[in-house]
Amino acid sequence: MCSPLVEKIVRERIQKEGLPNFSRRNFLKLGGVAAGGLAAASLIPQRKAQAQTAAMGVTDLSHIFATEMPTYTLGETPTREPFVTVEANGFFIQRWTLYEHAGTHVDFPAHFIADGETVDIYPVENLLGPAVVIDIAERAAEDPDTMVMPEDLDAWESANGEIPAGAIVCMYSGWESRWSSIQDFRNPDADGVMHFPGFGPEAAEWLLAERDIYGIAVDTLSLDPGNSTTFDVHVAICSAGKFGIENIANLSSIMNNQASIFVGIPRWQGSGGGPSRIVAFHAADM
Amino acid sequence: MCSPLVEKIVRERIQKEGLPNFSRRNFLKLGGVAAGGLAAASLIPQRKAQAQTAAMGVTDLSHIFATEMPTYTLGETPTREPFVTVEANGFFIQRWTLYEHAGTHVDFPAHFIADGETVDIYPVENLLGPAVVIDIAERAAEDPDTMVMPEDLDAWESANGEIPAGAIVCMYSGWESRWSSIQDFRNPDADGVMHFPGFGPEAAEWLLAERDIYGIAVDTLSLDPGNSTTFDVHVAICSAGKFGIENIANLSSIMNNQASIFVGIPRWQGSGGGPSRIVAFHAADM
Repeated sequence: MCSPLVEKIVRERIQKEGLPNFSRRNFLKLGGVAAGGLAAASLIPQRKAQAQTAAMGVTDLSHIFATEMPTYTLGETPTREPFVTVEANGFFIQRWTLYEHAGTHVDFPAHFIADGETVDIYPVENLLGPAVVIDIAERAAEDPDTMVMPEDLDAWESANGEIPAGAIVCMYSGWESRWSSIQDFRNPDADGVMHFPGFGPEAAEWLLAERDIYGIAVDTLSLDPGNSTTFDVHVAICSAGKFGIENIANLSSIMNNQASIFVGIPRWQGSGGGPSRIVAFHAADM
Repeated sequence: MCSPLVEKIVRERIQKEGLPNFSRRNFLKLGGVAAGGLAAASLIPQRKAQAQTAAMGVTDLSHIFATEMPTYTLGETPTREPFVTVEANGFFIQRWTLYEHAGTHVDFPAHFIADGETVDIYPVENLLGPAVVIDIAERAAEDPDTMVMPEDLDAWESANGEIPAGAIVCMYSGWESRWSSIQDFRNPDADGVMHFPGFGPEAAEWLLAERDIYGIAVDTLSLDPGNSTTFDVHVAICSAGKFGIENIANLSSIMNNQASIFVGIPRWQGSGGGPSRIVAFHAADM
Protein backbone atom coordinates (compact mmCIF):
# COMPACT_ATOMS: atom_id res chain seq x y z
CA MET A 1 0.00 0.00 0.00
CA CYS A 2 0.99 3.60 -0.12
CA SER A 3 2.59 4.69 3.12
CA PRO A 4 0.25 6.53 5.51
CA LEU A 5 2.15 9.68 4.68
CA VAL A 6 1.54 9.35 0.97
CA GLU A 7 -2.12 8.58 1.58
CA LYS A 8 -2.41 11.72 3.67
CA ILE A 9 -0.88 13.84 0.94
CA VAL A 10 -3.21 12.41 -1.68
CA ARG A 11 -6.26 12.79 0.55
CA GLU A 12 -5.43 16.43 1.18
CA ARG A 13 -4.91 17.06 -2.50
CA ILE A 14 -8.20 15.42 -3.41
CA GLN A 15 -10.06 17.34 -0.71
CA LYS A 16 -8.62 20.57 -2.06
CA GLU A 17 -8.80 19.98 -5.80
CA GLY A 18 -11.26 17.16 -6.30
CA LEU A 19 -10.52 13.91 -8.11
CA PRO A 20 -8.27 14.32 -11.14
CA ASN A 21 -10.06 14.05 -14.45
CA PHE A 22 -8.88 10.98 -16.29
CA SER A 23 -10.17 8.31 -18.60
CA ARG A 24 -10.00 4.55 -18.20
CA ARG A 25 -7.67 4.52 -21.17
CA ASN A 26 -5.25 6.70 -19.24
CA PHE A 27 -5.44 4.35 -16.28
CA LEU A 28 -4.44 1.46 -18.49
CA LYS A 29 -1.59 3.42 -19.96
CA LEU A 30 -0.36 4.55 -16.59
CA GLY A 31 -0.82 1.42 -14.57
CA GLY A 32 0.61 -1.37 -16.68
CA VAL A 33 -1.03 -4.65 -17.61
CA ALA A 34 -2.74 -5.70 -14.40
CA ALA A 35 -3.10 -2.39 -12.63
CA GLY A 36 -5.44 -0.71 -15.09
CA GLY A 37 -8.88 -1.30 -13.71
CA LEU A 38 -7.69 -1.00 -10.14
CA ALA A 39 -5.65 2.20 -10.31
CA ALA A 40 -8.74 4.21 -9.40
CA ALA A 41 -9.37 1.94 -6.45
CA SER A 42 -6.12 3.05 -4.84
CA LEU A 43 -7.98 6.22 -3.94
CA ILE A 44 -10.75 4.26 -2.21
CA PRO A 45 -9.68 3.14 1.27
CA GLN A 46 -11.48 -0.20 1.30
CA ARG A 47 -9.62 -1.41 -1.76
CA LYS A 48 -6.18 0.04 -1.14
CA ALA A 49 -4.44 -3.22 -0.29
CA GLN A 50 -5.84 -4.93 -3.37
CA ALA A 51 -4.92 -2.04 -5.65
CA GLN A 52 -1.42 -2.14 -4.27
CA THR A 53 -0.90 -5.84 -4.97
CA ALA A 54 -2.64 -5.58 -8.35
CA ALA A 55 -0.04 -3.03 -9.38
CA MET A 56 2.84 -5.29 -8.31
CA GLY A 57 4.80 -7.56 -10.59
CA VAL A 58 5.72 -11.06 -9.42
CA THR A 59 8.99 -12.72 -10.44
CA ASP A 60 9.75 -16.36 -9.75
CA LEU A 61 12.93 -17.06 -7.78
CA SER A 62 12.34 -20.84 -7.65
CA HIS A 63 13.69 -23.81 -9.58
CA ILE A 64 11.32 -26.61 -10.53
CA PHE A 65 11.24 -29.21 -7.71
CA ALA A 66 12.41 -32.09 -9.89
CA THR A 67 13.65 -35.66 -9.69
CA GLU A 68 16.87 -34.89 -11.56
CA MET A 69 18.13 -31.80 -9.74
CA PRO A 70 21.43 -31.37 -7.82
CA THR A 71 21.31 -31.98 -4.05
CA TYR A 72 23.86 -31.28 -1.32
CA THR A 73 24.05 -34.97 -0.44
CA LEU A 74 23.79 -37.39 -3.36
CA GLY A 75 20.78 -39.65 -2.94
CA GLU A 76 18.50 -36.96 -1.49
CA THR A 77 16.72 -36.30 -4.77
CA PRO A 78 12.95 -36.74 -4.57
CA THR A 79 10.99 -39.43 -6.38
CA ARG A 80 7.50 -39.21 -7.81
CA GLU A 81 5.07 -41.65 -9.37
CA PRO A 82 1.50 -41.44 -10.62
CA PHE A 83 -0.90 -42.58 -7.89
CA VAL A 84 -4.07 -42.08 -9.95
CA THR A 85 -4.38 -40.73 -13.51
CA VAL A 86 -7.00 -38.88 -15.55
CA GLU A 87 -7.07 -41.73 -18.05
CA ALA A 88 -7.62 -44.53 -15.52
CA ASN A 89 -9.31 -42.73 -12.64
CA GLY A 90 -10.67 -39.42 -13.89
CA PHE A 91 -8.14 -37.31 -12.04
CA PHE A 92 -4.39 -37.11 -11.52
CA ILE A 93 -2.40 -37.32 -8.27
CA GLN A 94 1.30 -38.05 -7.85
CA ARG A 95 2.89 -39.66 -4.79
CA TRP A 96 6.20 -38.07 -3.75
CA THR A 97 8.98 -39.22 -1.48
CA LEU A 98 11.18 -36.30 -0.57
CA TYR A 99 13.94 -35.15 1.74
CA GLU A 100 13.18 -31.70 3.11
CA HIS A 101 16.39 -29.91 2.16
CA ALA A 102 16.35 -30.26 -1.63
CA GLY A 103 15.53 -27.91 -4.48
CA THR A 104 14.75 -24.27 -3.83
CA HIS A 105 14.14 -24.59 -0.12
CA VAL A 106 14.66 -22.91 3.24
CA ASP A 107 16.62 -23.79 6.38
CA PHE A 108 14.83 -22.80 9.59
CA PRO A 109 16.30 -22.87 13.13
CA ALA A 110 15.31 -26.52 13.82
CA HIS A 111 17.54 -27.64 10.92
CA PHE A 112 20.63 -27.11 13.12
CA ILE A 113 19.30 -26.41 16.63
CA ALA A 114 17.73 -29.24 18.65
CA ASP A 115 14.98 -27.04 20.15
CA GLY A 116 14.91 -24.52 17.33
CA GLU A 117 11.73 -23.10 15.81
CA THR A 118 10.06 -25.27 13.18
CA VAL A 119 8.48 -24.14 9.92
CA ASP A 120 4.89 -24.77 11.02
CA ILE A 121 5.08 -22.28 13.91
CA TYR A 122 7.49 -19.70 12.44
CA PRO A 123 5.95 -16.17 12.29
CA VAL A 124 4.45 -15.63 8.85
CA GLU A 125 5.18 -11.87 8.98
CA ASN A 126 8.90 -12.65 8.87
CA LEU A 127 8.56 -14.40 5.51
CA LEU A 128 8.25 -11.09 3.61
CA GLY A 129 11.14 -8.61 3.45
CA PRO A 130 13.13 -6.27 1.22
CA ALA A 131 15.62 -8.01 -1.09
CA VAL A 132 19.27 -6.99 -0.78
CA VAL A 133 21.35 -8.58 -3.55
CA ILE A 134 25.12 -8.87 -3.01
CA ASP A 135 26.80 -9.49 -6.37
CA ILE A 136 29.97 -11.58 -6.18
CA ALA A 137 29.55 -13.21 -9.59
CA GLU A 138 32.74 -11.78 -11.05
CA ARG A 139 34.85 -13.24 -8.21
CA ALA A 140 32.95 -16.54 -8.26
CA ALA A 141 33.75 -17.00 -11.95
CA GLU A 142 37.46 -17.00 -11.01
CA ASP A 143 37.34 -18.69 -7.61
CA PRO A 144 34.57 -21.16 -6.72
CA ASP A 145 35.63 -21.02 -3.03
CA THR A 146 34.93 -17.30 -2.75
CA MET A 147 32.62 -16.03 0.00
CA VAL A 148 30.48 -13.02 0.82
CA MET A 149 32.78 -10.85 2.96
CA PRO A 150 32.07 -7.87 5.24
CA GLU A 151 33.67 -5.69 2.54
CA ASP A 152 30.92 -6.77 0.11
CA LEU A 153 28.27 -5.61 2.58
CA ASP A 154 30.15 -2.32 3.08
CA ALA A 155 30.24 -1.78 -0.67
CA TRP A 156 26.53 -2.47 -0.98
CA GLU A 157 25.70 0.00 1.78
CA SER A 158 27.95 2.66 0.27
CA ALA A 159 25.97 2.39 -2.96
CA ASN A 160 22.48 1.82 -1.56
CA GLY A 161 22.27 3.00 2.04
CA GLU A 162 21.94 0.91 5.19
CA ILE A 163 20.55 -2.61 4.80
CA PRO A 164 16.89 -2.12 5.80
CA ALA A 165 15.16 -3.80 8.73
CA GLY A 166 13.61 -7.11 7.75
CA ALA A 167 15.95 -7.56 4.77
CA ILE A 168 16.56 -10.88 3.09
CA VAL A 169 20.22 -10.61 2.08
CA CYS A 170 20.99 -12.65 -1.04
CA MET A 171 24.31 -13.86 -2.45
CA TYR A 172 24.28 -13.67 -6.24
CA SER A 173 27.22 -15.73 -7.47
CA GLY A 174 25.92 -16.61 -10.94
CA TRP A 175 26.12 -20.30 -9.96
CA GLU A 176 22.59 -20.85 -11.27
CA SER A 177 23.92 -21.27 -14.82
CA ARG A 178 25.24 -24.68 -13.68
CA TRP A 179 21.87 -25.92 -12.29
CA SER A 180 21.15 -28.29 -15.20
CA SER A 181 24.33 -30.30 -14.43
CA ILE A 182 24.50 -32.11 -11.10
CA GLN A 183 28.26 -32.45 -11.53
CA ASP A 184 28.89 -28.78 -12.32
CA PHE A 185 26.55 -27.46 -9.62
CA ARG A 186 28.07 -29.62 -6.87
CA ASN A 187 31.57 -29.18 -8.35
CA PRO A 188 33.40 -31.86 -6.30
CA ASP A 189 37.19 -32.27 -6.48
CA ALA A 190 39.01 -35.63 -6.67
CA ASP A 191 38.45 -36.14 -2.93
CA GLY A 192 34.73 -35.42 -3.20
CA VAL A 193 35.03 -32.01 -1.51
CA MET A 194 32.57 -29.62 -3.15
CA HIS A 195 33.59 -26.14 -4.31
CA PHE A 196 30.96 -23.43 -4.66
CA PRO A 197 30.47 -19.98 -3.10
CA GLY A 198 28.58 -19.17 0.10
CA PHE A 199 28.43 -16.62 2.89
CA GLY A 200 31.61 -16.20 4.91
CA PRO A 201 31.09 -16.48 8.68
CA GLU A 202 32.30 -12.91 9.29
CA ALA A 203 29.69 -11.45 6.95
CA ALA A 204 26.93 -13.54 8.51
CA GLU A 205 27.99 -12.59 12.04
CA TRP A 206 28.12 -8.90 11.09
CA LEU A 207 24.61 -9.02 9.59
CA LEU A 208 23.26 -10.71 12.73
CA ALA A 209 25.04 -8.34 15.12
CA GLU A 210 24.76 -5.02 13.30
CA ARG A 211 21.62 -5.21 11.14
CA ASP A 212 18.05 -6.36 11.75
CA ILE A 213 17.68 -8.96 8.97
CA TYR A 214 14.98 -11.63 8.56
CA GLY A 215 17.19 -14.06 6.66
CA ILE A 216 19.77 -14.72 3.98
CA ALA A 217 19.74 -16.53 0.63
CA VAL A 218 22.24 -18.17 -1.71
CA ASP A 219 22.05 -19.36 -5.33
CA THR A 220 24.14 -22.42 -4.40
CA LEU A 221 23.51 -25.66 -2.44
CA SER A 222 24.54 -24.31 0.97
CA LEU A 223 24.62 -21.11 3.02
CA ASP A 224 28.26 -21.99 3.81
CA PRO A 225 30.80 -22.41 0.99
CA GLY A 226 30.91 -25.92 -0.49
CA ASN A 227 34.23 -26.77 1.17
CA SER A 228 33.03 -25.90 4.71
CA THR A 229 33.25 -28.66 7.30
CA THR A 230 32.04 -26.60 10.27
CA PHE A 231 28.86 -25.00 8.82
CA ASP A 232 29.48 -21.79 10.78
CA VAL A 233 26.95 -19.77 8.81
CA HIS A 234 24.23 -22.38 9.23
CA VAL A 235 24.85 -22.47 12.97
CA ALA A 236 24.94 -18.67 13.28
CA ILE A 237 21.74 -18.12 11.27
CA CYS A 238 19.80 -20.93 12.95
CA SER A 239 21.01 -19.98 16.45
CA ALA A 240 19.80 -16.44 15.85
CA GLY A 241 16.32 -17.70 14.97
CA LYS A 242 16.65 -16.56 11.32
CA PHE A 243 16.29 -18.53 8.09
CA GLY A 244 18.43 -19.20 5.04
CA ILE A 245 17.19 -19.87 1.50
CA GLU A 246 19.24 -22.28 -0.65
CA ASN A 247 19.15 -22.75 -4.43
CA ILE A 248 17.36 -19.47 -4.99
CA ALA A 249 16.98 -18.72 -8.72
CA ASN A 250 16.73 -15.75 -11.03
CA LEU A 251 18.35 -13.17 -8.73
CA SER A 252 19.70 -11.47 -11.84
CA SER A 253 16.20 -10.09 -12.39
CA ILE A 254 16.20 -8.15 -9.09
CA MET A 255 19.77 -6.81 -9.03
CA ASN A 256 18.45 -3.24 -8.71
CA ASN A 257 17.50 -3.93 -5.06
CA GLN A 258 13.97 -2.67 -5.59
CA ALA A 259 12.08 -5.89 -4.87
CA SER A 260 10.75 -7.63 -1.79
CA ILE A 261 11.03 -11.39 -1.34
CA PHE A 262 8.28 -13.68 -0.05
CA VAL A 263 9.09 -17.16 1.27
CA GLY A 264 6.16 -19.38 0.28
CA ILE A 265 6.92 -22.47 2.34
CA PRO A 266 4.13 -24.96 3.15
CA ARG A 267 3.71 -25.43 6.91
CA TRP A 268 5.68 -28.70 7.01
CA GLN A 269 4.89 -30.25 10.40
CA GLY A 270 7.74 -30.34 12.93
CA SER A 271 10.17 -29.40 10.23
CA GLY A 272 13.50 -27.59 9.97
CA GLY A 273 12.70 -26.51 6.41
CA GLY A 274 11.47 -27.79 3.11
CA PRO A 275 10.49 -27.18 -0.53
CA SER A 276 9.21 -23.64 -1.05
CA ARG A 277 8.00 -21.14 -3.60
CA ILE A 278 10.27 -18.11 -3.40
CA VAL A 279 9.08 -15.05 -5.33
CA ALA A 280 9.93 -11.37 -5.65
CA PHE A 281 7.32 -8.61 -5.63
CA HIS A 282 8.28 -5.39 -7.36
CA ALA A 283 6.85 -2.44 -9.28
CA ALA A 284 4.97 -3.74 -12.31
CA ASP A 285 7.14 -1.68 -14.64
CA MET A 286 10.51 -2.75 -13.19
CA MET B 1 3.15 0.19 -4.94
CA CYS B 2 1.30 3.44 -5.14
CA SER B 3 -0.50 3.81 -8.43
CA PRO B 4 1.28 5.99 -10.98
CA LEU B 5 -1.40 8.58 -10.39
CA VAL B 6 -0.73 8.73 -6.67
CA GLU B 7 3.00 8.92 -7.29
CA LYS B 8 2.46 11.84 -9.63
CA ILE B 9 0.37 13.68 -7.05
CA VAL B 10 2.98 13.16 -4.37
CA ARG B 11 5.83 14.17 -6.66
CA GLU B 12 4.05 17.38 -7.56
CA ARG B 13 3.32 18.18 -3.93
CA ILE B 14 6.93 17.56 -2.95
CA GLN B 15 8.22 19.68 -5.81
CA LYS B 16 5.93 22.48 -4.71
CA GLU B 17 6.21 22.29 -0.95
CA GLY B 18 9.34 20.30 -0.24
CA LEU B 19 9.49 17.10 1.81
CA PRO B 20 7.17 17.10 4.83
CA ASN B 21 8.90 17.59 8.14
CA PHE B 22 8.64 14.47 10.20
CA SER B 23 10.61 12.46 12.74
CA ARG B 24 11.50 8.79 12.67
CA ARG B 25 9.25 8.37 15.70
CA ASN B 26 6.31 9.62 13.66
CA PHE B 27 7.14 7.17 10.90
CA LEU B 28 6.97 4.33 13.38
CA LYS B 29 3.65 5.54 14.71
CA LEU B 30 2.19 6.01 11.27
CA GLY B 31 3.54 2.98 9.51
CA GLY B 32 2.94 0.08 11.87
CA VAL B 33 5.47 -2.41 13.16
CA ALA B 34 7.52 -3.21 10.10
CA ALA B 35 6.93 -0.14 7.99
CA GLY B 36 8.67 2.38 10.19
CA GLY B 37 12.14 2.66 8.76
CA LEU B 38 10.87 2.34 5.22
CA ALA B 39 8.00 4.79 5.17
CA ALA B 40 10.37 7.54 4.07
CA ALA B 41 11.64 5.35 1.29
CA SER B 42 8.23 5.32 -0.36
CA LEU B 43 9.09 8.80 -1.59
CA ILE B 44 12.29 7.54 -3.21
CA PRO B 45 11.52 5.79 -6.52
CA GLN B 46 14.14 3.07 -6.21
CA ARG B 47 12.69 1.79 -2.95
CA LYS B 48 9.00 2.15 -3.64
CA ALA B 49 8.23 -1.55 -4.08
CA GLN B 50 10.01 -2.42 -0.84
CA ALA B 51 8.25 0.33 1.11
CA GLN B 52 4.96 -0.93 -0.17
CA THR B 53 5.49 -4.51 0.94
CA ALA B 54 7.01 -3.38 4.24
CA ALA B 55 3.76 -1.57 5.00
CA MET B 56 1.69 -4.69 4.28
CA GLY B 57 0.45 -7.15 6.84
CA VAL B 58 0.61 -10.88 6.11
CA THR B 59 -2.04 -13.29 7.37
CA ASP B 60 -1.70 -17.05 7.13
CA LEU B 61 -4.50 -18.87 5.30
CA SER B 62 -2.83 -22.30 5.62
CA HIS B 63 -3.29 -25.28 7.91
CA ILE B 64 -0.23 -27.15 9.14
CA PHE B 65 0.66 -29.92 6.66
CA ALA B 66 0.34 -32.73 9.18
CA THR B 67 0.20 -36.50 9.42
CA GLU B 68 -3.15 -36.50 11.24
CA MET B 69 -5.23 -34.15 9.08
CA PRO B 70 -8.46 -34.93 7.19
CA THR B 71 -8.10 -35.91 3.52
CA TYR B 72 -10.69 -36.31 0.76
CA THR B 73 -9.79 -39.98 0.34
CA LEU B 74 -8.91 -41.87 3.52
CA GLY B 75 -5.35 -43.17 3.34
CA GLU B 76 -3.92 -40.14 1.54
CA THR B 77 -2.47 -38.58 4.68
CA PRO B 78 1.27 -37.93 4.47
CA THR B 79 3.89 -39.71 6.54
CA ARG B 80 7.15 -38.30 7.89
CA GLU B 81 10.15 -39.74 9.67
CA PRO B 82 13.48 -38.36 10.83
CA PHE B 83 16.16 -39.05 8.21
CA VAL B 84 19.01 -37.41 10.13
CA THR B 85 18.86 -35.63 13.50
CA VAL B 86 20.77 -32.86 15.26
CA GLU B 87 21.64 -35.25 18.09
CA ALA B 88 23.03 -38.04 15.89
CA ASN B 89 24.16 -36.19 12.77
CA GLY B 90 24.49 -32.49 13.61
CA PHE B 91 21.46 -31.46 11.57
CA PHE B 92 17.84 -32.42 11.10
CA ILE B 93 16.06 -33.58 7.94
CA GLN B 94 12.73 -35.40 7.67
CA ARG B 95 11.74 -37.75 4.85
CA TRP B 96 8.14 -37.32 3.69
CA THR B 97 5.85 -39.49 1.62
CA LEU B 98 2.91 -37.47 0.41
CA TYR B 99 -0.02 -37.45 -1.98
CA GLU B 100 -0.28 -34.12 -3.76
CA HIS B 101 -3.88 -33.25 -2.97
CA ALA B 102 -3.81 -33.13 0.83
CA GLY B 103 -3.76 -30.33 3.36
CA THR B 104 -4.06 -26.71 2.27
CA HIS B 105 -3.32 -27.28 -1.39
CA VAL B 106 -4.25 -26.23 -4.90
CA ASP B 107 -5.82 -28.01 -7.89
CA PHE B 108 -4.32 -26.93 -11.23
CA PRO B 109 -5.66 -27.84 -14.71
CA ALA B 110 -3.64 -31.10 -14.96
CA HIS B 111 -5.50 -32.47 -11.92
CA PHE B 112 -8.57 -33.12 -14.11
CA ILE B 113 -7.44 -32.49 -17.70
CA ALA B 114 -5.08 -34.96 -19.40
CA ASP B 115 -3.07 -32.27 -21.19
CA GLY B 116 -3.78 -29.50 -18.69
CA GLU B 117 -1.18 -27.05 -17.40
CA THR B 118 1.01 -28.32 -14.57
CA VAL B 119 2.15 -26.40 -11.49
CA ASP B 120 5.78 -26.08 -12.57
CA ILE B 121 4.93 -24.12 -15.73
CA TYR B 122 1.84 -22.20 -14.55
CA PRO B 123 2.29 -18.38 -14.84
CA VAL B 124 3.50 -17.01 -11.51
CA GLU B 125 1.71 -13.67 -12.09
CA ASN B 126 -1.62 -15.49 -11.82
CA LEU B 127 -0.84 -16.66 -8.28
CA LEU B 128 -1.54 -13.20 -6.78
CA GLY B 129 -5.03 -11.66 -6.88
CA PRO B 130 -7.66 -9.75 -4.91
CA ALA B 131 -9.57 -11.87 -2.37
CA VAL B 132 -13.36 -11.99 -2.72
CA VAL B 133 -14.95 -13.78 0.24
CA ILE B 134 -18.45 -15.22 -0.19
CA ASP B 135 -19.94 -15.89 3.24
CA ILE B 136 -22.36 -18.84 3.35
CA ALA B 137 -21.55 -19.86 6.93
CA GLU B 138 -25.04 -19.26 8.26
CA ARG B 139 -26.58 -21.59 5.64
CA ALA B 140 -23.80 -24.16 6.05
CA ALA B 141 -24.50 -24.40 9.78
CA GLU B 142 -28.04 -25.59 8.93
CA ASP B 143 -27.36 -27.55 5.75
CA PRO B 144 -23.98 -29.20 5.10
CA ASP B 145 -24.96 -29.81 1.44
CA THR B 146 -25.37 -26.11 0.71
CA MET B 147 -23.50 -24.55 -2.21
CA VAL B 148 -22.31 -21.17 -3.42
CA MET B 149 -25.11 -20.03 -5.76
CA PRO B 150 -25.25 -17.26 -8.39
CA GLU B 151 -27.46 -15.35 -5.93
CA ASP B 152 -24.55 -15.27 -3.44
CA LEU B 153 -22.32 -13.70 -6.09
CA ASP B 154 -25.05 -11.19 -6.93
CA ALA B 155 -25.37 -10.26 -3.28
CA TRP B 156 -21.61 -9.80 -2.95
CA GLU B 157 -21.50 -7.53 -5.99
CA SER B 158 -24.45 -5.50 -4.77
CA ALA B 159 -22.55 -4.79 -1.56
CA ASN B 160 -19.01 -4.48 -2.94
CA GLY B 161 -19.09 -3.72 -6.66
CA GLU B 162 -18.10 -5.98 -9.54
CA ILE B 163 -15.75 -8.86 -8.76
CA PRO B 164 -12.38 -7.45 -9.88
CA ALA B 165 -10.17 -8.89 -12.62
CA GLY B 166 -7.75 -11.47 -11.27
CA ALA B 167 -9.91 -12.21 -8.24
CA ILE B 168 -9.56 -15.35 -6.16
CA VAL B 169 -13.17 -16.04 -5.12
CA CYS B 170 -13.37 -17.83 -1.77
CA MET B 171 -16.21 -19.78 -0.19
CA TYR B 172 -16.32 -19.14 3.56
CA SER B 173 -18.54 -21.81 5.09
CA GLY B 174 -17.10 -21.86 8.61
CA TRP B 175 -16.20 -25.54 8.08
CA GLU B 176 -12.68 -24.88 9.39
CA SER B 177 -13.90 -25.25 12.99
CA ARG B 178 -14.15 -29.01 12.26
CA TRP B 179 -10.54 -29.35 10.99
CA SER B 180 -9.23 -31.06 14.12
CA SER B 181 -11.67 -33.98 13.68
CA ILE B 182 -11.24 -36.15 10.57
CA GLN B 183 -14.75 -37.50 11.11
CA ASP B 184 -16.44 -34.12 11.48
CA PHE B 185 -14.54 -32.51 8.60
CA ARG B 186 -15.31 -35.32 6.14
CA ASN B 187 -18.82 -35.76 7.62
CA PRO B 188 -19.73 -39.06 5.95
CA ASP B 189 -23.23 -40.53 6.22
CA ALA B 190 -24.01 -44.23 6.83
CA ASP B 191 -23.27 -44.99 3.18
CA GLY B 192 -19.91 -43.19 3.28
CA VAL B 193 -21.16 -40.23 1.23
CA MET B 194 -19.53 -37.05 2.53
CA HIS B 195 -21.55 -33.92 3.29
CA PHE B 196 -19.83 -30.53 3.27
CA PRO B 197 -20.35 -27.30 1.30
CA GLY B 198 -18.72 -26.36 -2.00
CA PHE B 199 -19.26 -24.24 -5.07
CA GLY B 200 -22.38 -25.00 -7.07
CA PRO B 201 -21.74 -25.57 -10.80
CA GLU B 202 -23.93 -22.61 -11.81
CA ALA B 203 -21.89 -20.19 -9.69
CA ALA B 204 -18.61 -21.54 -11.06
CA GLU B 205 -19.84 -21.36 -14.66
CA TRP B 206 -21.05 -17.80 -14.13
CA LEU B 207 -17.69 -16.71 -12.70
CA LEU B 208 -15.85 -18.28 -15.63
CA ALA B 209 -18.20 -16.84 -18.26
CA GLU B 210 -18.93 -13.38 -16.84
CA ARG B 211 -15.92 -12.39 -14.74
CA ASP B 212 -12.14 -12.52 -15.26
CA ILE B 213 -11.09 -14.54 -12.21
CA TYR B 214 -7.74 -16.24 -11.52
CA GLY B 215 -9.17 -18.98 -9.31
CA ILE B 216 -11.52 -20.04 -6.52
CA ALA B 217 -11.01 -21.34 -3.00
CA VAL B 218 -12.97 -23.35 -0.43
CA ASP B 219 -12.50 -24.00 3.29
CA THR B 220 -13.60 -27.62 2.78
CA LEU B 221 -12.02 -30.74 1.21
CA SER B 222 -13.33 -30.17 -2.32
CA LEU B 223 -14.31 -27.41 -4.74
CA ASP B 224 -17.52 -29.39 -5.35
CA PRO B 225 -19.87 -30.19 -2.46
CA GLY B 226 -18.97 -33.38 -0.58
CA ASN B 227 -21.87 -35.34 -2.07
CA SER B 228 -20.93 -34.58 -5.69
CA THR B 229 -20.29 -37.58 -7.94
CA THR B 230 -19.68 -35.61 -11.15
CA PHE B 231 -17.14 -33.01 -9.97
CA ASP B 232 -18.61 -30.38 -12.27
CA VAL B 233 -16.81 -27.49 -10.60
CA HIS B 234 -13.44 -29.23 -10.76
CA VAL B 235 -13.95 -29.93 -14.45
CA ALA B 236 -15.12 -26.39 -15.21
CA ILE B 237 -12.27 -24.69 -13.34
CA CYS B 238 -9.55 -27.00 -14.69
CA SER B 239 -10.93 -26.87 -18.26
CA ALA B 240 -10.82 -23.08 -18.12
CA GLY B 241 -7.13 -23.15 -17.13
CA LYS B 242 -7.85 -21.74 -13.66
CA PHE B 243 -6.99 -23.12 -10.22
CA GLY B 244 -8.90 -24.03 -7.06
CA ILE B 245 -7.57 -23.88 -3.50
CA GLU B 246 -8.87 -26.50 -1.05
CA ASN B 247 -8.74 -26.49 2.76
CA ILE B 248 -7.98 -22.78 2.90
CA ALA B 249 -7.89 -21.53 6.51
CA ASN B 250 -8.58 -18.36 8.43
CA LEU B 251 -10.83 -16.65 5.87
CA SER B 252 -12.68 -15.06 8.79
CA SER B 253 -9.73 -12.66 9.10
CA ILE B 254 -10.25 -11.21 5.60
CA MET B 255 -14.05 -11.00 5.44
CA ASN B 256 -13.83 -7.27 4.68
CA ASN B 257 -12.66 -8.08 1.13
CA GLN B 258 -9.64 -5.79 1.42
CA ALA B 259 -6.88 -8.37 1.07
CA SER B 260 -5.05 -10.01 -1.80
CA ILE B 261 -4.21 -13.71 -1.79
CA PHE B 262 -0.89 -15.23 -2.84
CA VAL B 263 -0.63 -18.93 -3.73
CA GLY B 264 2.81 -20.07 -2.53
CA ILE B 265 3.01 -23.46 -4.20
CA PRO B 266 6.42 -25.10 -4.76
CA ARG B 267 7.03 -25.87 -8.44
CA TRP B 268 6.08 -29.56 -8.10
CA GLN B 269 7.36 -31.20 -11.32
CA GLY B 270 4.71 -32.42 -13.76
CA SER B 271 2.06 -31.92 -11.14
CA GLY B 272 -1.66 -31.14 -11.04
CA GLY B 273 -1.28 -29.46 -7.65
CA GLY B 274 0.23 -29.92 -4.25
CA PRO B 275 0.92 -28.63 -0.73
CA SER B 276 1.11 -24.83 -0.65
CA ARG B 277 1.49 -21.80 1.56
CA ILE B 278 -1.56 -19.62 1.04
CA VAL B 279 -1.35 -16.14 2.56
CA ALA B 280 -3.25 -12.85 2.46
CA PHE B 281 -1.56 -9.47 2.07
CA HIS B 282 -3.47 -6.49 3.43
CA ALA B 283 -3.00 -3.06 4.94
CA ALA B 284 -0.88 -3.39 8.07
CA ASP B 285 -3.59 -1.76 10.19
CA MET B 286 -6.49 -3.92 8.93
